Amino acid sequence: MLLTPGPTAVPPEVLEALSRPVLHHRSPDFKLLFGRVQERLRAVFETAGDVLVHTSSGTGAFESALVNLLSPGERVLAVSSGAFGERWQAMARALGCDVRELRYPWGAVPDATEIEHAAADSGATVAVLVHSETSTGVVLDLEACAAAARSAGALVVVDAISSLGAVPLRTDAWKLDVVVTGSQKALMTPPGLAFVAVGERAWAKSREATLPRFYWDWERARAAQAKDNTAFTPAVSTVVALDVALELLLGEGLERAFARHVALGRSARAGVKALGLELYSPDDDSAAVLTAALTPDGVDAVDLRLSLRDRFALTVAGGHGDIVDRLFRIGHIGYVDVFDVARALAAIEVLLGEAGREVEPGAGVAAALAAHENAAAV
Amino acid sequence: MLLTPGPTAVPPEVLEALSRPVLHHRSPDFKLLFGRVQERLRAVFETAGDVLVHTSSGTGAFESALVNLLSPGERVLAVSSGAFGERWQAMARALGCDVRELRYPWGAVPDATEIEHAAADSGATVAVLVHSETSTGVVLDLEACAAAARSAGALVVVDAISSLGAVPLRTDAWKLDVVVTGSQKALMTPPGLAFVAVGERAWAKSREATLPRFYWDWERARAAQAKDNTAFTPAVSTVVALDVALELLLGEGLERAFARHVALGRSARAGVKALGLELYSPDDDSAAVLTAALTPDGVDAVDLRLSLRDRFALTVAGGHGDIVDRLFRIGHIGYVDVFDVARALAAIEVLLGEAGREVEPGAGVAAALAAHENAAAV
Repeated sequence: MLLTPGPTAVPPEVLEALSRPVLHHRSPDFKLLFGRVQERLRAVFETAGDVLVHTSSGTGAFESALVNLLSPGERVLAVSSGAFGERWQAMARALGCDVRELRYPWGAVPDATEIEHAAADSGATVAVLVHSETSTGVVLDLEACAAAARSAGALVVVDAISSLGAVPLRTDAWKLDVVVTGSQKALMTPPGLAFVAVGERAWAKSREATLPRFYWDWERARAAQAKDNTAFTPAVSTVVALDVALELLLGEGLERAFARHVALGRSARAGVKALGLELYSPDDDSAAVLTAALTPDGVDAVDLRLSLRDRFALTVAGGHGDIVDRLFRIGHIGYVDVFDVARALAAIEVLLGEAGREVEPGAGVAAALAAHENAAAV
Repeated sequence: MLLTPGPTAVPPEVLEALSRPVLHHRSPDFKLLFGRVQERLRAVFETAGDVLVHTSSGTGAFESALVNLLSPGERVLAVSSGAFGERWQAMARALGCDVRELRYPWGAVPDATEIEHAAADSGATVAVLVHSETSTGVVLDLEACAAAARSAGALVVVDAISSLGAVPLRTDAWKLDVVVTGSQKALMTPPGLAFVAVGERAWAKSREATLPRFYWDWERARAAQAKDNTAFTPAVSTVVALDVALELLLGEGLERAFARHVALGRSARAGVKALGLELYSPDDDSAAVLTAALTPDGVDAVDLRLSLRDRFALTVAGGHGDIVDRLFRIGHIGYVDVFDVARALAAIEVLLGEAGREVEPGAGVAAALAAHENAAAV
């Protein structure tokens, strides 16, 4: 059982769809399906514009944003407060851009006013924002931060890889120029597909951008998708699975899914604190994607994760960087309910007890369920 | 049922593997699996060197070869005799290379001596060869053509997307510098993964190549794969499926698989001719990947394909370019036996009869089975 912030657990209906005989991507059946998938993606992105489909991980789709928007040496502002923000800085540099960093310490929450100043001072034409920093659990105020970058004249590219479908992201209403996500997070599908919503300002800019591109070329993708086709052989079985997963998500309703994730965040935080652990992710409702916590002195987070896996068949995510020995992350996006969170808390309680920590039996689960009930009542 | 040259039909064991609960790509289970998959890939590529795994289509992996080997403006010789050779020419040009084309008419078989002269005359540092041109059914003499390009001083990049696992390709023995393939052809796995074997000369050249790269960066991939990991989230479920498919292929034995594909090609050609159709792919044992045929006057190939699909649930591939109304292609790579080919011939016979063509009942199937028996006896 996966309680990670991606890949996430996949519903059985989606796994079943994945295992159907393979469709041919040039067949009428696939066209019909792919037209529907494109409609559903637009609904989840809350956009009337294009959502391009790449067969790649989210990192690949992010590269498509940079190579379609930028020319060699062009200035980019990349905001980071964790591993993924730093990855986009490294990527933009590797692709030959002039990267200006607004680099926060890991776990900090980027601030809109600071972003506006940094964008204006740098004169960057493109600003890169990480909506949900999966390495730390921080979800920034995207509407405000994007408006700040835009008001300084920058196009806004959003890493929404672990946020889309989990927390509100309104592509058109918030005037987001480019939004990138992957199949394997709140979209409840195995990894292998990634999606890029491209707005009008981004299309205009892409026509002048000269970074070399072929596989990632947006025009080629748009031309094919206009005929419910793809430029290159897509991961067809994953598209079939995605169709089912998007139907489930839209059937639940986006607003209800967002409320569920807020409630799951409250549950996980309440439970973690009741177990006497220190929170690393923010202690507020913004932290609806994952709950990151630090193990107490004498309890190694790597050992804890391996024991959860070996003894209880439960996978949570580890830490990055300096705090790999202390940090673990419970993902609660996608196909997750409060009893999944409770199961993880119960298992962690067992392991903490065996490590000699004093924990009141059942305290984590009780706190999680109580917090969830309160959230549901709101 | 798919009788296309990719995506191909996937064995039920592989579909079952695909539908298992998703693994986390940083888990010990995945590492163990991925180590085994890398070993199996090396066996199928017949190389002791690196086989890098990209989450992409074959086109993406091909782009990785160009951006890791070349610098802007560098000269490339790209040999084409169909749609895919022409795609690589367009790609190399889009990426900013100085492309010299050795362009044959569609369906022609590239010649080693001509390749040697073209490579020498152009002074290209890299030569691009298409082992199996999926749009026409032509399989070139790769050992001779690669030696020719190499003798003129070029590194050899091979598109083996529809050939690897179907016909002999001996990466190390034939001193192939780079070999690219995809999961969805003779490797009997859904699309979504692509593989690049990189030899020592290619590694040396990649260290000097300056085309920008991040997602496709070979060094980053190699460093991760050395730890049985991937640089970015891979299509984990497709890796799980691939492991099963490679076990099936290696269990059959590569040489036996190659002989099976030769026999299937003989069957398909004998059957197609017995139905009175004109072959478009070569009429010899090189055409072991697919059999391309032209419909008779008055029979539209697009209609034929749609009828095969709608009435007999059988998908064959269409034509590209000018002869889309005449050409259809029966793929016989991967999870295919002679009775699958016979089924397609029987269905085509029904449709030809309905279109008013005189066909001796059962002639196609009988010829296919007879040719197969002769092949098996060799």
